[in-house]
Amino acid sequence: MITRLQLIILALLPTLVQAQTTENYTQYVQPLTGTQRMGHTYPGATVPFGAVQLSPETDTLPYEVNGKYNKDVYKYCAGYQYEDKTIVGFTHTHFSGTGHSDLGDILIMPEAGKLQLNPGTADHPENGYRSAFLHTTEKAEPGYYKVQLTDDNITAELTATTRVGFHRYTFPAGNEAHIILDMMYGIYNYPDKNVWTFLRVVNDTLVTGYRQTNGWARTRTVYFAMTFSKPFTSYGYENNSKKEVYRGFWRKFDQLHNFPEMAGQQIRAYFNFSTSANEQVKIKVALSPVSQENALQNLRTETPGWDFDAVKKQAQDQWNAELGKMQVITTSLAEKQNFYTALYHTFINPTVYMDVNNSYRGLDQDNHTAAGFTNYTTFSLWDTYRALHPLFNIIQPHRNRDMIRSMLAHYDQSVQHMLPVWSHYANDNWCMIGYHSVSVIADAVIKDNADFDANKALDACITTATHRGYDGLGYYMDMGYVPEDKNGASVSKTLEYAYDDWCIAQMAKKLGRMDVYTTFSKRAENYRNVYDAVTGYMRPRLNDGSFRKPFDVLNTDEPGYIEGNAWNYSLYVPHAPDTMIAMMGGKQRFAAHLDSLFTIQLPDSFFAHTEDITRDGIIGNYVHGNEPSHHVAYLYNYTGKPWKTQERVRMILKKMYHPGPDGLGGNDDCGQMSAWYIFSSLGFYPVAPGSDQYELGSPSVKTATLQLENGKTFTIEAKNQSDKNVYVQKAVLNGKTLDRLYITHSEIMSGGTLVFYMSGKK
Amino acid sequence: MITRLQLIILALLPTLVQAQTTENYTQYVQPLTGTQRMGHTYPGATVPFGAVQLSPETDTLPYEVNGKYNKDVYKYCAGYQYEDKTIVGFTHTHFSGTGHSDLGDILIMPEAGKLQLNPGTADHPENGYRSAFLHTTEKAEPGYYKVQLTDDNITAELTATTRVGFHRYTFPAGNEAHIILDMMYGIYNYPDKNVWTFLRVVNDTLVTGYRQTNGWARTRTVYFAMTFSKPFTSYGYENNSKKEVYRGFWRKFDQLHNFPEMAGQQIRAYFNFSTSANEQVKIKVALSPVSQENALQNLRTETPGWDFDAVKKQAQDQWNAELGKMQVITTSLAEKQNFYTALYHTFINPTVYMDVNNSYRGLDQDNHTAAGFTNYTTFSLWDTYRALHPLFNIIQPHRNRDMIRSMLAHYDQSVQHMLPVWSHYANDNWCMIGYHSVSVIADAVIKDNADFDANKALDACITTATHRGYDGLGYYMDMGYVPEDKNGASVSKTLEYAYDDWCIAQMAKKLGRMDVYTTFSKRAENYRNVYDAVTGYMRPRLNDGSFRKPFDVLNTDEPGYIEGNAWNYSLYVPHAPDTMIAMMGGKQRFAAHLDSLFTIQLPDSFFAHTEDITRDGIIGNYVHGNEPSHHVAYLYNYTGKPWKTQERVRMILKKMYHPGPDGLGGNDDCGQMSAWYIFSSLGFYPVAPGSDQYELGSPSVKTATLQLENGKTFTIEAKNQSDKNVYVQKAVLNGKTLDRLYITHSEIMSGGTLVFYMSGKK
Repeated sequence: MITRLQLIILALLPTLVQAQTTENYTQYVQPLTGTQRMGHTYPGATVPFGAVQLSPETDTLPYEVNGKYNKDVYKYCAGYQYEDKTIVGFTHTHFSGTGHSDLGDILIMPEAGKLQLNPGTADHPENGYRSAFLHTTEKAEPGYYKVQLTDDNITAELTATTRVGFHRYTFPAGNEAHIILDMMYGIYNYPDKNVWTFLRVVNDTLVTGYRQTNGWARTRTVYFAMTFSKPFTSYGYENNSKKEVYRGFWRKFDQLHNFPEMAGQQIRAYFNFSTSANEQVKIKVALSPVSQENALQNLRTETPGWDFDAVKKQAQDQWNAELGKMQVITTSLAEKQNFYTALYHTFINPTVYMDVNNSYRGLDQDNHTAAGFTNYTTFSLWDTYRALHPLFNIIQPHRNRDMIRSMLAHYDQSVQHMLPVWSHYANDNWCMIGYHSVSVIADAVIKDNADFDANKALDACITTATHRGYDGLGYYMDMGYVPEDKNGASVSKTLEYAYDDWCIAQMAKKLGRMDVYTTFSKRAENYRNVYDAVTGYMRPRLNDGSFRKPFDVLNTDEPGYIEGNAWNYSLYVPHAPDTMIAMMGGKQRFAAHLDSLFTIQLPDSFFAHTEDITRDGIIGNYVHGNEPSHHVAYLYNYTGKPWKTQERVRMILKKMYHPGPDGLGGNDDCGQMSAWYIFSSLGFYPVAPGSDQYELGSPSVKTATLQLENGKTFTIEAKNQSDKNVYVQKAVLNGKTLDRLYITHSEIMSGGTLVFYMSGKK
Repeated sequence: MITRLQLIILALLPTLVQAQTTENYTQYVQPLTGTQRMGHTYPGATVPFGAVQLSPETDTLPYEVNGKYNKDVYKYCAGYQYEDKTIVGFTHTHFSGTGHSDLGDILIMPEAGKLQLNPGTADHPENGYRSAFLHTTEKAEPGYYKVQLTDDNITAELTATTRVGFHRYTFPAGNEAHIILDMMYGIYNYPDKNVWTFLRVVNDTLVTGYRQTNGWARTRTVYFAMTFSKPFTSYGYENNSKKEVYRGFWRKFDQLHNFPEMAGQQIRAYFNFSTSANEQVKIKVALSPVSQENALQNLRTETPGWDFDAVKKQAQDQWNAELGKMQVITTSLAEKQNFYTALYHTFINPTVYMDVNNSYRGLDQDNHTAAGFTNYTTFSLWDTYRALHPLFNIIQPHRNRDMIRSMLAHYDQSVQHMLPVWSHYANDNWCMIGYHSVSVIADAVIKDNADFDANKALDACITTATHRGYDGLGYYMDMGYVPEDKNGASVSKTLEYAYDDWCIAQMAKKLGRMDVYTTFSKRAENYRNVYDAVTGYMRPRLNDGSFRKPFDVLNTDEPGYIEGNAWNYSLYVPHAPDTMIAMMGGKQRFAAHLDSLFTIQLPDSFFAHTEDITRDGIIGNYVHGNEPSHHVAYLYNYTGKPWKTQERVRMILKKMYHPGPDGLGGNDDCGQMSAWYIFSSLGFYPVAPGSDQYELGSPSVKTATLQLENGKTFTIEAKNQSDKNVYVQKAVLNGKTLDRLYITHSEIMSGGTLVFYMSGKK
């Protein structure tokens, strides 16, 4: 039970933290980091966990070519690729770092001179409303983005509040100005992805409407309200679909000019303005999951005025307050940039999915009210259970509790009776494997960060984990493993189910439900069932009990695995590393396996089919760009060779992260890659969320001060820190030398100081 | 201002009236009347003004053949044609008597034996879930419909509450039973009319979902909740569209069997039951304009149990209470059947469009709450302003006020700032011409039946009447007529705008807004601008002021007119008949014109292009099946020859209405045709709604007692009534012989007795 006073304190926390912040941390954040190649981040404006992500689109590729999926579109998951030379517009929703996509809603683009209602092409942006741009004119800061649109010499600036995207366009001389509102555009624009769009011109400064799509989210609707700082003089639209089949008596109107009701599948609208040189037209676009009226209420509540600079300052103050929760001193500017850019990326997803009046659309496609919590969406759980949610348990505990309450609401609305797998915008897209909501929930319960009904949450975990129709789970329950001939990626699934089951067991134990503990502890042993003692690898088994042949341990396309090969996935028993090591031949042999992982040289052909990582995301056969290996470097701790953990971690930190557009070695995956950076740079990592322990690694910061929500401070200090001094001679917690290779959650949350003594010697 | 006590009394009124009713009036109603040819009524179950109209579908025709509109589908506006031999299922929404269509939502069909998920064909119903049936097994009563489905020997029975359709299916021996839920089916099923459908199997007796369409209503969504009296044993579905483009990780489920989340454009689902001989499976389907949750609330509130017979009785009691508001004695059973069938048809549309919790979807596609009124939809105003709404001002005044409040809410939500033209389900389809909401509002204001803000309503009328972009209205405002070369049907529009303007003037006068009165009184004279003194007809004029050539006064396709030719439309100045008659050459010449209308013999070729009337709907050149002539027979009163009104009215009553499926001479048009019958059979008619006068005609009833909501009773008695005694020798109101050819609204509402003395002599 949380008291009203506590709630007030929590509400004030950003302010309190901000008051303590003297440094401007936003200066170190480079939102462009990860926008080149496979980072899949976006450079635009958003506030922490904001519902609006207002960012430029450079995409030019059709989703299909001759009826076939065009795999090149994969790079446009966040709508923007650094090497592109043109921008087609600015849209209001983006995932950060995902490996598949959706969104890109409500495209706005300014135009001067002759109206062009087609988007144009990358080769000839001048033939449409698309424009060329130069990176030299581009400015990307937390909560602010600016670029010069070369074609028509328009300056575009973007900022945001939680639910409102705020645009400021400065027009050149010449009195013909236009704002394009393209409802057709979308990221991953499948043919017929648009189900319906609807626009109402309420008056000469207000437009409302919605976009309904069938994409990664099967049934998704985004409502919006859009206001202009200056009345438009006229407007119109084009419907580029045959879908609007019945026109009939609508012909009594001139529907193409100043017609305020636009509805159809493929609509592009324009609004004309008369402007003078350097005149600014400002636009605010609020989103809502529920209704146009709610969008308007969001707009009026969050942005009552037209002061762009004040909203920008507010957004940056918010970022500074969040970033200031971790105050670090580093050995170089680049590291500081790495750190705060990573922290920035961890504070983007999940996103608020609720109006200012607490209403949101549920998984059942009905509207609901979030009673006593903020509803979030965008749960990329296969990625984020590993380090992002554990990070939140430390630095965003209040939000993490609300995220779990959002998951439980999702469960209540699920006719599958399942917690979210990969959910966004009132949908589950079921992406990837496992049921890792249970890890997030167990981690919070174990770490005493649960203000929800933990027993009810445990019931939801159990129901989820016993859905026989889900992804081979029936076989797993009956046979102790998923047979590859019945259900693919069977090794990955068996291993991850076993880990998730261990999480359920831990939570049950803490809640005193020993029958559940016993059942799921037994299931947590199922990793043994896919271990092939002959080859020494986790290996796919068939329905008849035999191991599948042939077997290639390096092949990343090998049946039995997903986003990883046998070499990597064989290390995935995070909840029982000691047993795993014993099973796999003991510490010596296991350490050799680990070594080989980092040192083996693979030919390029191995990466031909992996679309979500680049060569950069790989060290030997260690794939940091995919998540299943994220705990691997820390496993050396269990082999009696912690110095190997320390050197590997420092190597990965250095090799996989650097400032600049190409600074990420793979998809950021809604902050998981960045959360790995934060933990590892601080010197510890949650190998098995659901445990209260963090394995010690090697910090890369000189000092870090964590301002905790409970008012306490946890400080990390790395004495004698340098690029070469990657080895930890000793770790001292509150003056006491640690005789173990981990610290616990409560040790962090109690406040105190952890001092690492660094050295260049093992 | 209405007091709380008055509200309670109003709420109790149906009960009070019912208490006075001893006769069972439902026995005279033949819901099958009008189901043959062009009546466009439906035979299924509904309650008065019910939101659910649960009725069989016999339609077999595609909307398009080779990409072209198949004009034969026109006869299926209500889904059912009497000559058909098969039923494809039962759907929950139907218009009554419209000349265009939509709806036909949520088709349910029982099946025994082998599951067939395709609808089959009329020729071979046995190849699908469609079934043959015989009219001998059919029973259609108010609130109840029954039929034997021959193919599988299943008895189907239907009843309803306001928001719930209640099905009862009796299965034969053999334990395989199925219920088909076809979300693809719809009336006027344009290709791609379905925008999206969504189904959730909540548990083994509850399914919820919605159907979203783009039809006559451009953007329309119907939510539903469906419960079964017995758990289904298994279920599945087919998606017959390529629209569901992203499947991806959904493949981890077996989506075809017992998969509870179905979404796509074209879905047909089935539910399997194990039944024994004569076992009944009952289904309740509640609709909502807002959400699945609201549908479920409607279901639980209106039909908490499973007693089909009790719900049927309740529906029939409701009908009896409504029908009993007019208690008539007639000279024949057929006339009584005509009368109550007509009264039944007047009490179907408009329909309630609001959940039990008062929420509804507005024209803006957002949800709203009706504060203090019942929200209605389905306003076929070009038809119903003439007699249906005036009839409501007498016998359903409370509902009529709520209908007007519904129109005003529509206005508030309209970005066109217009009152409804032809609105249904949160849409305006803009069908037909004029802005006849103003007539309905003015009529209520003039007749003191306005509990809304009349001045605000007048403002809405003025704004509507000055929308320059609407259907030639800008020209009309500037030039005093619509020029045919600028906007078609120009004569019809000019005449109807002029009448509507007169309505606005009358209302303004009553409200003391004399500037408005002056302006609109002037506009009301605009009928003069399309009168061609040379030919003596209302005739299309061009932008240059000249009359259009050539000019064919009989051609029903003649430019300048809609649903009427020059001969008929030239008589349309209902607000100024005396002036019109003078303008057209005086009483003598005008009476001759009227005579010719009824006596001229037209060749069949004249009707080749009129799809909404049959030869039966016509007397000479008088077209009763279309509305513009509905007041015409009463115009003889103004020529000094009231006996001609009397004989024409009696002739029309006799010729155009009779019991049985082919009993209507044209579309019933949401009750307008039937309202004409009710008024005329009572002996009076509202020639110009907006006036408080009713022209006297010739009653066909022997006596009629009107139980008014104010507690008073108005009785009509026709002494010496017979088929031949069609002439009124004198009319005596409350003992005083009338020296005029009209009675006033307040005379009716004050209660009393109107005695007609009938004779066979003129």
